[in-house]
Amino acid sequence: MMKIDILSLFPEMFEGVLHSSIMKKAQEKEAVEFGVTDFRDYSENKHRKVDDYPYGGGAGMVLKPEPLFAAVEAVTEEVTAKPRVILLCPQGERFSQRKAEELAKEEHLIFVCGHYEGYDERIREELVTDEISLGDFVLTGGEIAAMAIVDSVVRLLPNVLGNTESSVLDSFSTGLLEHPQYTRPANFKGLEVPEVLLSGNHAKIEQWREEQALIRTYKRRKDLLKEAPLTEHQKKLLAELESKDTEL
Amino acid sequence: MMKIDILSLFPEMFEGVLHSSIMKKAQEKEAVEFGVTDFRDYSENKHRKVDDYPYGGGAGMVLKPEPLFAAVEAVTEEVTAKPRVILLCPQGERFSQRKAEELAKEEHLIFVCGHYEGYDERIREELVTDEISLGDFVLTGGEIAAMAIVDSVVRLLPNVLGNTESSVLDSFSTGLLEHPQYTRPANFKGLEVPEVLLSGNHAKIEQWREEQALIRTYKRRKDLLKEAPLTEHQKKLLAELESKDTEL
Repeated sequence: MMKIDILSLFPEMFEGVLHSSIMKKAQEKEAVEFGVTDFRDYSENKHRKVDDYPYGGGAGMVLKPEPLFAAVEAVTEEVTAKPRVILLCPQGERFSQRKAEELAKEEHLIFVCGHYEGYDERIREELVTDEISLGDFVLTGGEIAAMAIVDSVVRLLPNVLGNTESSVLDSFSTGLLEHPQYTRPANFKGLEVPEVLLSGNHAKIEQWREEQALIRTYKRRKDLLKEAPLTEHQKKLLAELESKDTEL
Repeated sequence: MMKIDILSLFPEMFEGVLHSSIMKKAQEKEAVEFGVTDFRDYSENKHRKVDDYPYGGGAGMVLKPEPLFAAVEAVTEEVTAKPRVILLCPQGERFSQRKAEELAKEEHLIFVCGHYEGYDERIREELVTDEISLGDFVLTGGEIAAMAIVDSVVRLLPNVLGNTESSVLDSFSTGLLEHPQYTRPANFKGLEVPEVLLSGNHAKIEQWREEQALIRTYKRRKDLLKEAPLTEHQKKLLAELESKDTEL
């Protein structure tokens, strides 16, 4: 069973997410155990301070090393496996599906969530094994980024996803974006489902889907086409799309 | 005041996040009003179904158009401003700080969160104004992605951030990653703060920080260097770093 510890000054933020949907099921199936720790409890300061002014001056506050080192020590006491200690920060490597797969093999993940403050550099150098960023945008704290990573990792653990959930083809399994999907009604406010999907002709449906997946990827994410394995039909279509673009 | 509506089958996931920290303050200051709607309430089906099998066959289920169209209609009834209707999905454009700034100018945002299911294409075509993805990784649903976007947008609204929070230099304001920060104690378990930061020499401290910000960005995010405005000192240092790399 994987152990996931989250260190945060806002533990209440995690209530909803860790007790709903797949996260809830994953705990019931004993695939994962969550611990959420307020690292303010590990402050040695009588006012429970966890931050202080930066050496050298400047605006903003900096998270002190002691409370986080002590909190990590506490949550690792009863786990024998060496933990991955993950710091959420804009300076980190960008999170990806490959990173999720890598983390899913670990036994113990610890997420360190700061909240509109800097981290004392010694935390990065000596405590943390991975610095991860969700992308080039600013969040108030690391909590929501930690939730995203936890969700993407836990759904990869053995036995967590049932047939319903895992049968959905995700956008990374074929290397292309997914083709358009339609369900009933066939006519909704005058908007109709493409005829081919109602035809019952499976070969034609498959061909239409291959085309649509390619066209969508070509329009939205050309970068994916370099590595995606294409069918012969898709290769031809891609050549056509490219030659049209050159004509313009 | 901005209105943010979230349409989800797991409204309880949002409890913690929307009632903590900056999100809580933003509501108290009447900068934003949140509404979380279970769009299952808008199913016309007696079993409250919101999904159905895909036309043309295949695995997985597809979210039906009716409940989402009806839910959007309901939450827009009392808002005069034209809403941005945002679909969270891996096919969407990648979220960025620029997009956060764009959305922060709107009066009404509606987030449509699916949960391990596809969307009927007519939802994308006729209901939605923006499709957004957090990045190339798979989440169980759109909920956590919506939280990330909401957080990054709400913190940009007028009067939401106080001095403490906004004074933190974020990694995107200088165009470079932030320099290392240190706070007390000067010696923690033998790990010492760089002497220059204790020197009181402000010119030297500033120079050290410029150097460190450049070095960190060079090591971790070379792509940012193309657009970052560099000081003369940083330009020289960059040339040195690049010539060393060539020698290797």
